[in-house]
Amino acid sequence: MNSSGDEKSRLGNGVVGILAETVNKWERRTPLTPLHCARLLHGGKDRTGVSRVVVQPSAKRIHHDALYEDVGCEVSDDLSDCGLILGIKQPELETILPERAYAFFSHTHKAQKENMPFLDEILSKGVTLCDYELIVGDHGKRLLAFGKYAGRAGLVDFLHGLGQRYLSLGYSTPFLSLGSSYMYSSLAAAKAAVVSVGEEIASQGLPLGICPLVFVFTGTGNVSLGAQEIFTLLPHTFVEPSKLPELFVKDKEVTQNGKSTKRVYQVYGCIITSQDMVEHKDPSKSFHKADYYAHPEHYNPVFHEKISPYMSVLVNCIYWEKRFPRLLSTKQIIDLTTKGCPLVGICDITCDIGGSIEFLNRATLIDSPFFRFNPSNNSYYDDMDGDGVICMAIDILPTEFAKEASQHFGDILSGFVGSLASVTELADLPEHLKRACISYKGELTSLYEYIPRMRKSNAEEVPQENMANGVFLQSKRTYNIVVDLDEV
Amino acid sequence: MNSSGDEKSRLGNGVVGILAETVNKWERRTPLTPLHCARLLHGGKDRTGVSRVVVQPSAKRIHHDALYEDVGCEVSDDLSDCGLILGIKQPELETILPERAYAFFSHTHKAQKENMPFLDEILSKGVTLCDYELIVGDHGKRLLAFGKYAGRAGLVDFLHGLGQRYLSLGYSTPFLSLGSSYMYSSLAAAKAAVVSVGEEIASQGLPLGICPLVFVFTGTGNVSLGAQEIFTLLPHTFVEPSKLPELFVKDKEVTQNGKSTKRVYQVYGCIITSQDMVEHKDPSKSFHKADYYAHPEHYNPVFHEKISPYMSVLVNCIYWEKRFPRLLSTKQIIDLTTKGCPLVGICDITCDIGGSIEFLNRATLIDSPFFRFNPSNNSYYDDMDGDGVICMAIDILPTEFAKEASQHFGDILSGFVGSLASVTELADLPEHLKRACISYKGELTSLYEYIPRMRKSNAEEVPQENMANGVFLQSKRTYNIVVDLDEV
Repeated sequence: MNSSGDEKSRLGNGVVGILAETVNKWERRTPLTPLHCARLLHGGKDRTGVSRVVVQPSAKRIHHDALYEDVGCEVSDDLSDCGLILGIKQPELETILPERAYAFFSHTHKAQKENMPFLDEILSKGVTLCDYELIVGDHGKRLLAFGKYAGRAGLVDFLHGLGQRYLSLGYSTPFLSLGSSYMYSSLAAAKAAVVSVGEEIASQGLPLGICPLVFVFTGTGNVSLGAQEIFTLLPHTFVEPSKLPELFVKDKEVTQNGKSTKRVYQVYGCIITSQDMVEHKDPSKSFHKADYYAHPEHYNPVFHEKISPYMSVLVNCIYWEKRFPRLLSTKQIIDLTTKGCPLVGICDITCDIGGSIEFLNRATLIDSPFFRFNPSNNSYYDDMDGDGVICMAIDILPTEFAKEASQHFGDILSGFVGSLASVTELADLPEHLKRACISYKGELTSLYEYIPRMRKSNAEEVPQENMANGVFLQSKRTYNIVVDLDEV
Repeated sequence: MNSSGDEKSRLGNGVVGILAETVNKWERRTPLTPLHCARLLHGGKDRTGVSRVVVQPSAKRIHHDALYEDVGCEVSDDLSDCGLILGIKQPELETILPERAYAFFSHTHKAQKENMPFLDEILSKGVTLCDYELIVGDHGKRLLAFGKYAGRAGLVDFLHGLGQRYLSLGYSTPFLSLGSSYMYSSLAAAKAAVVSVGEEIASQGLPLGICPLVFVFTGTGNVSLGAQEIFTLLPHTFVEPSKLPELFVKDKEVTQNGKSTKRVYQVYGCIITSQDMVEHKDPSKSFHKADYYAHPEHYNPVFHEKISPYMSVLVNCIYWEKRFPRLLSTKQIIDLTTKGCPLVGICDITCDIGGSIEFLNRATLIDSPFFRFNPSNNSYYDDMDGDGVICMAIDILPTEFAKEASQHFGDILSGFVGSLASVTELADLPEHLKRACISYKGELTSLYEYIPRMRKSNAEEVPQENMANGVFLQSKRTYNIVVDLDEV
């Protein structure tokens, strides 16, 4: 072990370390690509604050070691020279070096129980911890996030599963000609494949038996926008929530008058926000978002009556808290199933376990992305072959587009690395980075002094936690940051 | 039920039925595409022998119902007008119409136990049964087969799994950017994706830790050629079996002198035939194929010593019988594993369960294509995440390229349909079709009169059965058809 005095000199020394990711075998993202490192190194310490970059070797990082070496990074397991160490997810507990600055998604600021040993280690080792999730701009928006990539990867993965599900139901569809997001070498390649599926829908059509195929997107934030970006590559029409029933009447006519070999050449989309999910208990009062956020108890859920009976696929992209009505409760889905409804699947990109969709009770894996919930007997299955709805809730979606997600992330992080790598005093950091430091030299900073208190009373006080997919699901009550239910 | 006299008039009536496939949810192939039907109908009964085509509706057939309708076929569940009924796989037992001619892969000519109730039904209903598998040309080669498609689909599926397996082992490889065959809209699209993987290998390289990556292909038949067709889209060098050790010596040098970030920019292929699998027990005698086929007991297996220690992937494409030494026994793989060998996976395209690869003890599914065998404890697992080798043995591979496989099949079948649809007397059929008729009007034809005898003594007499993937694995001893171990 180095002496404490020796260690202290590391902070702000301009030597940046990049961790090998160890949390999840699918984690192929990197906080800085070789090109980002090249720019930082080329600028020189005086201009960029970075003098050296040491990269831990990794055979699964999306950019391989030699590419870092080629631009002047050092490849070594030993990060002891580094004053600032960057990761996507946390390093292994025992590898944390004392009195350095670390930056990664720590999932500690809500006193998440499973990560408290980690925070204790950080504090006991005199570490300065900057959490990407807490880097927030002046308008309360997160500056470093993967939401759009979650939306994109999530919808591609879901469309792939939809093809398999329809085949189980006896329908060959163009969706079957689509892989999961990670099976494409780039986001562009995945989008080209979706375009090709769309071409097939436009030219060959979809079987009438699964139409109208309606995708309902909740919310208007980055996650929803990313999912819609993929959806709109298909031939589609967006429908106002209030017009959904008409769509069905129209198509029913076709069914009655048309032949069974009739095909449908497009899909339908419907974007809903909180005003489509609830209505005021007092019929004389109309919906006001601010009033709803302040007094959710004055509102009744209507999603299950106004939207659910018409949707084939629910793409869930909203922030939700327990004080709001659920989007879809287990009882509601059971009732809907009894009455007969076209719902085929749930794509919960926010991975909000036991949250706005009550029966979504587990996260799924990239290589085993679906479970099946059968409302008829309230049971869960691993296969795709029986009754019920298929559900996807992958909590590490953005890594499926590791190349583009890393590029996007590093583009923004590059702007912060100089300060983080060269500054030795917390006070000298720009405001948005200062606010993101949970600890400074092993002590909780003033903004996060609440954590020990929260640890004690965690069970009662903390609302549904959710950090999946780089989506910001943070309690509005605890932090003074604007989070809109419709914008995640 | 129609009267017998009424029924008899159907045979040779020029009305062709196409079955909806019911055996496997993944079966999307069709014996005739809409274009084939269009040509047959356009020619007219006098020229083509076909007057009408009735297609059973199917929402999962690769060509949808409306496309058949558009060219003049009738879409109906009712095939009672049809004298000739075509399928890929057998229809449901209870739907067999009496005194028609049926053509499909019946898997009955080796008295396969599971299909005997089916044959009994055929015979009791006065049906004429033509089995595609038995349509053999003058040189003993099958005329209607899917072997090349099995090889193509099999290798794509395996490369996809290889990417997942390497990720489990901590290596990100370009193979991860590949889907299963069915996830592409065409064979061309799948090949383009493999080319793109190859481009990535050529430009970014493979991690040294998994190199040299050696694919061993057994046999030189259609299955092997199909698999090689995909393999050669990657940057590759074919190596003579005898040169495999050199390849390793060369790469070992690189490992010792080079840096750990070194990459390898190609894969290696090695095609082996029976002469590489065995050697004569008498060292003074060299290998002669005819002698080996006549006296396999004079030969010792050497594959496990000469080839196995150098292969990463075994792509099995050979016909095998129990009288020959196995390619790889369970004991051999256990010994190899103890000594350390680079084997990562087995891609058994022939799906030869318990056959030439002893530990390959089960078939796998398109949507669950791999199992893992751990030689260290002689155990089997469903996941990809532990020790051992991954094994793929999908028995319905060609349907993954349903469009091209149907096109290829129908191109050939079209030439036979006229005779089958218009002829009423067995004697009037061309020789190759006559030989393929197992029954005529409910009676076994002379070539197949052995079936009842074989049924009685099936357990002892019949060698390892295997009909997977349209591959011809038929006992040479029973039938007078040339089958080369190297050519499946």
